[in-house]
Amino acid sequence: MASTAEHDAMRRALAIAGRGPRGVNPQVGAVLLSPAGEVLAEGWHRGAGTPHAEVDALSRLAPGAARGATAVVTLEPCNHHGRTGPCSEALIAAGVARVVYSVADPGDHSSGGAARLREAGVDVEAGVLASEGAALLDSWLTVQRLGRPHVTVKWAQSLDGRAAAADGTSQWITGPAARAHVHRRRAAADAIVAGTGTVLADDPALTARAEDGSLLESQPVPVVVGTRAVPASAALRRHPHGFLQFPGDAASGGLAAVLEDLRARGAQRVFVEGGPALASSFLREGLADELLVYVAPVLLGGERLALHDLDVTTIADARRFTLAAVAPLGDDLLLTLRPREDVPSGPATVARSEAQREGVL
Amino acid sequence: MASTAEHDAMRRALAIAGRGPRGVNPQVGAVLLSPAGEVLAEGWHRGAGTPHAEVDALSRLAPGAARGATAVVTLEPCNHHGRTGPCSEALIAAGVARVVYSVADPGDHSSGGAARLREAGVDVEAGVLASEGAALLDSWLTVQRLGRPHVTVKWAQSLDGRAAAADGTSQWITGPAARAHVHRRRAAADAIVAGTGTVLADDPALTARAEDGSLLESQPVPVVVGTRAVPASAALRRHPHGFLQFPGDAASGGLAAVLEDLRARGAQRVFVEGGPALASSFLREGLADELLVYVAPVLLGGERLALHDLDVTTIADARRFTLAAVAPLGDDLLLTLRPREDVPSGPATVARSEAQREGVL
Repeated sequence: MASTAEHDAMRRALAIAGRGPRGVNPQVGAVLLSPAGEVLAEGWHRGAGTPHAEVDALSRLAPGAARGATAVVTLEPCNHHGRTGPCSEALIAAGVARVVYSVADPGDHSSGGAARLREAGVDVEAGVLASEGAALLDSWLTVQRLGRPHVTVKWAQSLDGRAAAADGTSQWITGPAARAHVHRRRAAADAIVAGTGTVLADDPALTARAEDGSLLESQPVPVVVGTRAVPASAALRRHPHGFLQFPGDAASGGLAAVLEDLRARGAQRVFVEGGPALASSFLREGLADELLVYVAPVLLGGERLALHDLDVTTIADARRFTLAAVAPLGDDLLLTLRPREDVPSGPATVARSEAQREGVL
Repeated sequence: MASTAEHDAMRRALAIAGRGPRGVNPQVGAVLLSPAGEVLAEGWHRGAGTPHAEVDALSRLAPGAARGATAVVTLEPCNHHGRTGPCSEALIAAGVARVVYSVADPGDHSSGGAARLREAGVDVEAGVLASEGAALLDSWLTVQRLGRPHVTVKWAQSLDGRAAAADGTSQWITGPAARAHVHRRRAAADAIVAGTGTVLADDPALTARAEDGSLLESQPVPVVVGTRAVPASAALRRHPHGFLQFPGDAASGGLAAVLEDLRARGAQRVFVEGGPALASSFLREGLADELLVYVAPVLLGGERLALHDLDVTTIADARRFTLAAVAPLGDDLLLTLRPREDVPSGPATVARSEAQREGVL
């Protein structure tokens, strides 16, 4: 059982992990505690090629000062010789007596740190604040486990599941607070994906904007899925990053091939918000790791549905999710959902993890 | 400004109001406070023909003991000579110096109590804990203002607004906690309404049941809307209260005529849960005072929608609601909504209020 001091230290480690950059390497934080539970040092990972969080924390202590200490780390200490040497060996060498971590390392080459520590006689406890740790690392864990970017599928709907009124008007179903939230979530993604149908119908800029219309600092790459041409006058063509287009059809490998290409370009977080047809396709193919559904307290009725067919024939085949969060946003409601089933991880999906952790992708 | 002691007394008055029966008369509570803010006496209304709450509270004090007191009452004191005499006169006669109430009496004959009290030099403050007061009296206020029962439209849906999978299966979209909640809400209604389509497709018992399947103490009268015959073998025919059937079509006056008939039979709270077509009809006709929407964190896609057409052509005509409450129920979410617009009350809708308050309906 982790102590209260260890839980507090894990909360602190999770907070400082977020200071590191979000990219191909995981964000990791570490806190070293004395046997009496006092904080000796903190560390976090600052990106590829820099010391891992545990080593960063150890480096702040005089030699020998970590003897008998407890290391509280957000991710299982690694066990591989990359650019920085295995953290498990560094902890053993420093005389750390106990290691508490939140999330197991799913990497094929980097995992095994806990086993190595135990072999060396270190007391190891896993899974402390595991869901908070997993939330911090969601996109990184998806890449490790599935070998593809983490996919968020977003849509706005009336309570009765419509995306527009009968005449096609949809501006605005949700209010300004919900729309501002969408832009902040866009800015946190590496790529934003829309279907050609949405591009042709709505001419979206696919930029992440502040409430005054100015561009936010971080802009995901816009991606269009479909075979129809993007018009010369499309707002998309004025995007600061240009745009990518993929056919996305079965002949070209479908959406999985789109994600594979985006991953190869370094995208870890993909935000899908381009219309009912595309959202339905991602859901049908089981390629949604997170749903963000902005629900307005309005009813529209009629035929303009926010989702189309999902290949669900009978109720036993319903696509089931866990409601991770429900948050009011102005008059609207934001529901965050994750797929109910645990996603199996196979060897084919973890082979890239070392290269990714080391940032060479 | 109402004092802290007066707010506390109003909370107490709202709580004891609920001890009275819910029926054609309103539930009302009253607390008498000394000038120093101490509770002198409490009272509540026990149903038609018994003293109103204020008079009940006054009757617990020795003559003269209410002189200079403050009366805290959940509903504006009445001003009419029914079976019990006007409460405003009783408060004046007792020498009450100040009256604080929550909800104004919308009745044509019973209202005017506040004005009468002010004429007599009593200090009057209205609207204290007004939304709590209105929630307590929701069905009674609807009857007073609109001359028809209070209508709750209930449905269960997947997040994407479907009521069933492609093959028609729908048991169960929502979980046991949501279903148990539905039965408790049924038991609080006077009538439960289903369409013939639902009766023929699902053969519902339309009873309010405990989780072990036994009947709850209170059973609303089942009402079938539609022209098709209820089969001789229908579960509905075994309902302890029998059932009523109305055509509900335009020729017979539509749903408004159904509600008028139910009101004439004494129904104040009507629970509509009989399928997408009926729910859509109530919504189209603007006859929903409250929506109870049980949302499961599942996606179904396809064509089996929880609501059909609502005559919304363009987004400006969306049916807009206020989200009054969001509550988790097991894995599901219960959303409670009320129409956004304030409902106007005209002379035709209040003419029956005195008779109703006096319980002669």
